Amino acid sequence: MSSKPFSVLITGTSRGLGLEMVKQFAETQRPLSMLFSCCLDPANSEELQDLAKKHPDIIKVLRMDVADPDSIKQAAVQVGSLLGQSGLNLIINNATIAVYTPFLKSSPEDSTVTKPINIIHNFPSPGVLSSSTGHSGMSGMSCRKAAVINISSNLSSNDWIGLDCQFFNEIVLYDKLPMVPYRASKAALNMITSCASLELQKEELLCSLLHPGWVRTNMGGEYCIQGMIHLMNSMTDEHHGALVNYKGQTIPW
Amino acid sequence: MSSKPFSVLITGTSRGLGLEMVKQFAETQRPLSMLFSCCLDPANSEELQDLAKKHPDIIKVLRMDVADPDSIKQAAVQVGSLLGQSGLNLIINNATIAVYTPFLKSSPEDSTVTKPINIIHNFPSPGVLSSSTGHSGMSGMSCRKAAVINISSNLSSNDWIGLDCQFFNEIVLYDKLPMVPYRASKAALNMITSCASLELQKEELLCSLLHPGWVRTNMGGEYCIQGMIHLMNSMTDEHHGALVNYKGQTIPW
Repeated sequence: MSSKPFSVLITGTSRGLGLEMVKQFAETQRPLSMLFSCCLDPANSEELQDLAKKHPDIIKVLRMDVADPDSIKQAAVQVGSLLGQSGLNLIINNATIAVYTPFLKSSPEDSTVTKPINIIHNFPSPGVLSSSTGHSGMSGMSCRKAAVINISSNLSSNDWIGLDCQFFNEIVLYDKLPMVPYRASKAALNMITSCASLELQKEELLCSLLHPGWVRTNMGGEYCIQGMIHLMNSMTDEHHGALVNYKGQTIPW
Repeated sequence: MSSKPFSVLITGTSRGLGLEMVKQFAETQRPLSMLFSCCLDPANSEELQDLAKKHPDIIKVLRMDVADPDSIKQAAVQVGSLLGQSGLNLIINNATIAVYTPFLKSSPEDSTVTKPINIIHNFPSPGVLSSSTGHSGMSGMSCRKAAVINISSNLSSNDWIGLDCQFFNEIVLYDKLPMVPYRASKAALNMITSCASLELQKEELLCSLLHPGWVRTNMGGEYCIQGMIHLMNSMTDEHHGALVNYKGQTIPW
């Protein structure tokens, strides 16, 4: 692992998985130069504000509405002025809406498919694309160098047997989790990430999909997030374009 | 196969695959009571108008903008008044936009993911949902009874080896067909259809995904469309929820 200072941007950090990732990145990851914590309404996230006060040199809280391209552009300008010449090393696209909606009740408006495209497009400079070229001494891909990690889900997979839910049949599982727009947007996100991984391979920009694993454990978020950060620290070219769980196991889709 | 008259609705019929399906359904399928041919701008599709004049009792040309829920609702009202008490048996969601756009040049607006949801939602009555209950004498699922066939693509699959393109590696294939928004929307459509198939199984409404096969042959559309219609005529419960090519082979995704 490189000991060069690295920078991270995480979306959807007002609560839950995103908030916990900000906390554990800030507390455990070094040398961390800057951690951009992006959410829709920073003023109303007391926990995030408290966390930022504890790590004022590292955590920068930014407002970002991932549904609004202008809001993303504004955040990119702020990130650029704060980072200066150094590129952004790691983008974690975590913001999502997990609506429980069966097929017949879902509408096209429920879907949040293509927002990660917008985020990556608006962070080319300074960003992961420029960042990858600044590490000529490091061989291979790495989250410390230049990476986009898209938070997906095992529910994006059509391989129900691979979901570790053998005790349910697929109709029972569907009845329990009829998250149709969520699953459709994660399936689309998988495909976008897979295509992006082919397109960005020559720039050595690691593109990967991560299933956080909180659905199938009752241990709270902490263990999984430790696992996710450990995994991100050890990701290499072999994870490029793949959907992996927090243990590093590839999930077919 | 039932000899009861059946009705079909096809979207995206001004040209290409959709137009050819209308032609071959009208010319070869009997007993066909009504064929609703839906497209964005019927007045400017001369070939479709000529076809409708040749089969005035069967082909009903309707304007439908699949991106506009109001337009879909208006078409549903027209279909209802023309069909009367009998339900619509088969919906073929064919309308799509196949944009050649690589990842870095694509935008969220390129995506056409969730439109089939809208179409199915607006045709519950008279439609496939009511139609399935009117065939108590027929056992099992069938396109002549009640079905929604969503036109997908083998490009919706992440299984490149399954694409019969072994002579390309995946990066070469991606460079040739960087259709990122198209592939993402078809991946989402696959997931939506898979979920719908679980939800609509008890209504015996056949939901299936069809890869037309025109990408990998140079024989023109005709043979494939004959194959597609033959396949639709022979579809049973085993095709429910699956992505199949025009030969009836399941494509993993």
